[in-house]
Amino acid sequence: MNYETRIKELGLTIPDPPAPVASYLPGLQAGQFIFTSGQLPFANGRLAFVGRLGGDYTTQEGSEAARLCALNALGVVRSLAGSLDRVKQVVKITVFVNSLAGFTEQPQVANGASELLQEIFGEAGRHARSAVGVNALPLGAAVELEMVVMVK
Amino acid sequence: MNYETRIKELGLTIPDPPAPVASYLPGLQAGQFIFTSGQLPFANGRLAFVGRLGGDYTTQEGSEAARLCALNALGVVRSLAGSLDRVKQVVKITVFVNSLAGFTEQPQVANGASELLQEIFGEAGRHARSAVGVNALPLGAAVELEMVVMVK
Amino acid sequence: MNYETRIKELGLTIPDPPAPVASYLPGLQAGQFIFTSGQLPFANGRLAFVGRLGGDYTTQEGSEAARLCALNALGVVRSLAGSLDRVKQVVKITVFVNSLAGFTEQPQVANGASELLQEIFGEAGRHARSAVGVNALPLGAAVELEMVVMVK
Repeated sequence: MNYETRIKELGLTIPDPPAPVASYLPGLQAGQFIFTSGQLPFANGRLAFVGRLGGDYTTQEGSEAARLCALNALGVVRSLAGSLDRVKQVVKITVFVNSLAGFTEQPQVANGASELLQEIFGEAGRHARSAVGVNALPLGAAVELEMVVMVK
Repeated sequence: MNYETRIKELGLTIPDPPAPVASYLPGLQAGQFIFTSGQLPFANGRLAFVGRLGGDYTTQEGSEAARLCALNALGVVRSLAGSLDRVKQVVKITVFVNSLAGFTEQPQVANGASELLQEIFGEAGRHARSAVGVNALPLGAAVELEMVVMVK
Repeated sequence: MNYETRIKELGLTIPDPPAPVASYLPGLQAGQFIFTSGQLPFANGRLAFVGRLGGDYTTQEGSEAARLCALNALGVVRSLAGSLDRVKQVVKITVFVNSLAGFTEQPQVANGASELLQEIFGEAGRHARSAVGVNALPLGAAVELEMVVMVK
């Protein structure tokens, strides 16, 4: 139940969310739900995967990009909830995969995020999910992920 | 009000959802809302529409694919709610249509899902909807649909 | 707090939503949340931006299209809530940008909507947001936007 401890045990680093800029927020709590904005695969302040699946990256690399997006989304959730121990359930993730038209392994890419969430939260990390291909993403990122979480 | 009876009268078959695999779920209830994962046009365990609108399929065929996705989504809702009689309102569907760049009839494709929902649930089946084109979908499916439903 | 007055002061025109046609709705309230359907950049009943970013339109023009979509979404919210003064918080917008594959400024396009929302609602207008590129949209629209709003 103590997810923050589990995150330490797993040796994971949850990034701090970027400071809110301009007119929208990294995420927001409405009622019991936290909605994150679309997160890109940033690591140490640098966009780590720029390009398209089916061409620039393998499915395995795409799945690492999705995992990074999920870590960033959790950083947003933590900053809003105070602690990830307050997560009651990860409800839904939507994973947009920057894809060449012939690429059809969006689910395997999204697994990088889904597996991370289950590793951390167990049953409370199992979520509904949509994975879709798109032809363009902000900054040319390989993956963009948004998350809805229910908090206690 | 008895939707399960109506489904029988309409001669519709709502598929059982696939067994949950891996780290995500076919759908999830959070509070009063059920969120389904993105559903593909499976019929009898087989992906029935693989290809893109504007090329491989006519708009009418796309609308049949969207209808199949909606039937699968209802299978998920039924498995979570116990019975479709517990549906209070279909809230929102998002319909991703695998499209060539010049194809612009995503709404007509999505109508296949929307009309089915109204046929079954009447006023409670009328929902908010987004229909968008994308260049790639899991397994090359022609349509992917996710649904949010409010239950009693 | 009086948003309708502020809208008048800003000289903005919020369009009436289209009459519901067929089997889906311009938007829906479920619990405290209003979900709008995907809105296109209509102005005076005419689709004002038809084409793709990275080719047919500049980023600045895309941002005007996103602003128009947001005005139309607010028309839907107003029609459901009775008045925009009942808005408690704009929760989330998703902005689908009709993009050539090389176009990566979806966030700058989406800013047209985000800035409008903050202009009208202040802190209550600051929202979570996803901006993604897609290769095709209904009627060839340059932008499609959906909105989730919490009402009092």
